[in-house]
Amino acid sequence: MHLTTEDIFQAHRDGKLEIGLTTTLEDKRDLSIAYTPGVAEVSRAIYRDSAVAPAYTWASRLVAVVSDGSAVLGLGDIGATASLPVMEGKSALFKKFGNLNSIPLVLETTDVDEIVETLVRLRSSFGAVNLEDISAPRCFELEARLVEALDMPVMHDDQHGTAVVVLAALTNAAIVVGRELTGLRVAISGAGAAGIAVAEMLLAAGISDVTILDSRGIIHSDREDLTSVKATYAARTNPRGLTGTYTQALDGADVLIGVSSGTVPEEALATMSGDAIIFALSNPDPEVHPAVAGRYARIVATGRSDFPNQINNVLAFPGIFRGALDARATKITPAMKIAAAEAIAALAADNLAAGYIIPSPLDPRVAPAVATAVMAAVETSTGVINDPLRP
Amino acid sequence: MHLTTEDIFQAHRDGKLEIGLTTTLEDKRDLSIAYTPGVAEVSRAIYRDSAVAPAYTWASRLVAVVSDGSAVLGLGDIGATASLPVMEGKSALFKKFGNLNSIPLVLETTDVDEIVETLVRLRSSFGAVNLEDISAPRCFELEARLVEALDMPVMHDDQHGTAVVVLAALTNAAIVVGRELTGLRVAISGAGAAGIAVAEMLLAAGISDVTILDSRGIIHSDREDLTSVKATYAARTNPRGLTGTYTQALDGADVLIGVSSGTVPEEALATMSGDAIIFALSNPDPEVHPAVAGRYARIVATGRSDFPNQINNVLAFPGIFRGALDARATKITPAMKIAAAEAIAALAADNLAAGYIIPSPLDPRVAPAVATAVMAAVETSTGVINDPLRP
Repeated sequence: MHLTTEDIFQAHRDGKLEIGLTTTLEDKRDLSIAYTPGVAEVSRAIYRDSAVAPAYTWASRLVAVVSDGSAVLGLGDIGATASLPVMEGKSALFKKFGNLNSIPLVLETTDVDEIVETLVRLRSSFGAVNLEDISAPRCFELEARLVEALDMPVMHDDQHGTAVVVLAALTNAAIVVGRELTGLRVAISGAGAAGIAVAEMLLAAGISDVTILDSRGIIHSDREDLTSVKATYAARTNPRGLTGTYTQALDGADVLIGVSSGTVPEEALATMSGDAIIFALSNPDPEVHPAVAGRYARIVATGRSDFPNQINNVLAFPGIFRGALDARATKITPAMKIAAAEAIAALAADNLAAGYIIPSPLDPRVAPAVATAVMAAVETSTGVINDPLRP
Repeated sequence: MHLTTEDIFQAHRDGKLEIGLTTTLEDKRDLSIAYTPGVAEVSRAIYRDSAVAPAYTWASRLVAVVSDGSAVLGLGDIGATASLPVMEGKSALFKKFGNLNSIPLVLETTDVDEIVETLVRLRSSFGAVNLEDISAPRCFELEARLVEALDMPVMHDDQHGTAVVVLAALTNAAIVVGRELTGLRVAISGAGAAGIAVAEMLLAAGISDVTILDSRGIIHSDREDLTSVKATYAARTNPRGLTGTYTQALDGADVLIGVSSGTVPEEALATMSGDAIIFALSNPDPEVHPAVAGRYARIVATGRSDFPNQINNVLAFPGIFRGALDARATKITPAMKIAAAEAIAALAADNLAAGYIIPSPLDPRVAPAVATAVMAAVETSTGVINDPLRP
């Protein structure tokens, strides 16, 4: 599949989104209903009882795709304006796969307090927040603050979308190699947004032997150069107290998950266990080329569409937000994320093979299955009942 | 035309807007173009040169419809959430009449500093700001601050949209009664957002005898209860130094423009000049019922669709913003607003009559004519050249 620059720029001409109307505006009657005087009756009803707002505005199911442009794809801190094509793409994916309306909101500030304050002031304009491409470690504090401040689903997709799809793929990979998921020994290369969230998700799924590496090597409790987030995970991971680099981390490891934008030395891969699983997810350049990884692992996955087993967030976020909004959940909980991972994994379960551990990002069954599973997890965990108005 | 509550609520079900995609997302190739890896090339291009952003994002031509819900229709300060149906309606009108994408952004603050700060932080997310339903006198300061802070068209429609359409209607009414526009003696009932802006527009159009009344009577320089905005207009209007109430203001007046939500005593109307013109624009209840006004005036207009001569902002704002954005203007100037008024007036000029001084709000010729006139005014006043990429 060859993409020319011309193809790409042509497809982005004038942006990728537009506003559509869901009501007609053809005659005086339409105008009197959708605008004055008719609209006043709807506004008055919401003023009397804000609980009716979700039924008569788009906002309660609108996903704000929020970024400060500080960690965009592999491009880094390119700022708000340059991040817009990515955010519009994200909104397009929300619509295409989750049938959710979504608008990009990009911020000319990277200050966590200011971003929180801005979204709190705007909170009535949307019903969920998908944080996107926000650099670590600010992304952890920002997400936690917004979850606390906003009475709606908030999720940093670079963290949790990635973690959910990794868990789904790893669940199936374990089946293919005939291992218990929870018994796997896992090394995660990268302690940014994705690395930390993947670690958290794998711990939540019951995997006890997880070790994280950052650019200086294995994260362990004796290191004095750790951010507070890394220090937290130094305590919660690395149960065998490893120190060192890939040489130590991969020795006998069953799984390597690369979310680092770095490279992993081939000689360390050679020391992994016999049925090794390698997810080299850096884009566009995997930490290990799949051909190299294949020499040492039974299962290889990447983030790329031109190799088997593409780990792509689009498998997760449309269904997670759709399920959360359908259930009127106000939080995205670990139970909901695990349910999403299980639903994604289950869709590939009938045809599992080393080259097929995860459905295609374009598989139309995925988002509805994820949404249904997430809704069920909401109902189980919080007792919130599905809105009968939105079957 | 009878509107049932059921009709109205049904039309507002789930809100009136949706997101559409302007690019296809059907296969891996589409996904690789619109999202990773293709989108990175577009983001990189914008990062290198932000001047290309308008060509490849929707934001530069996106109108943010911004409100704090403090002065919504005749409902008053009903807050952000209850204002949403109105703002969605406004966005729908932008699309329908101006073919402009638009999103409602409602704010849970009425603090001018905070609103300015919020929009400045979000400025890369949109290309123009339509302020809506923001109470006076805050609306004057807010608009002025935003015009200064944002490098894009900003307009408070309750002020300037109204003023433009009033000027258009008055221009034609003067022709019908055989008077020079600039020689008319005008009384404006109401010194809120619309009243002040109408006064400003009529002064800009060369009408020298303009008198404004607020709820306490004629605004004149000896009053000590005036806000700073009213004090400014006390100095700029009322050239005959009138004091008192409608009795004094309407004695011999040619024009009454009601934008007050109040009522005007019938006995005062009886003292207006022989060819009087009455625009009673309060909605849904005009300051004077058209049947009553008709006893004292040759020309009567209202804001309602069920009487002749409907003065409706939708005649102005879609074309004004469309013209400003097409011309890449960064301000909406008096010259642009006067050009808009002239264009609206001109469309009714061939069939002028006492019952037809202004085109219908649904007349499809209006927005394109206004946009063209506004663009020409931009080019004349600032030398900005129309973007050849957007014919």
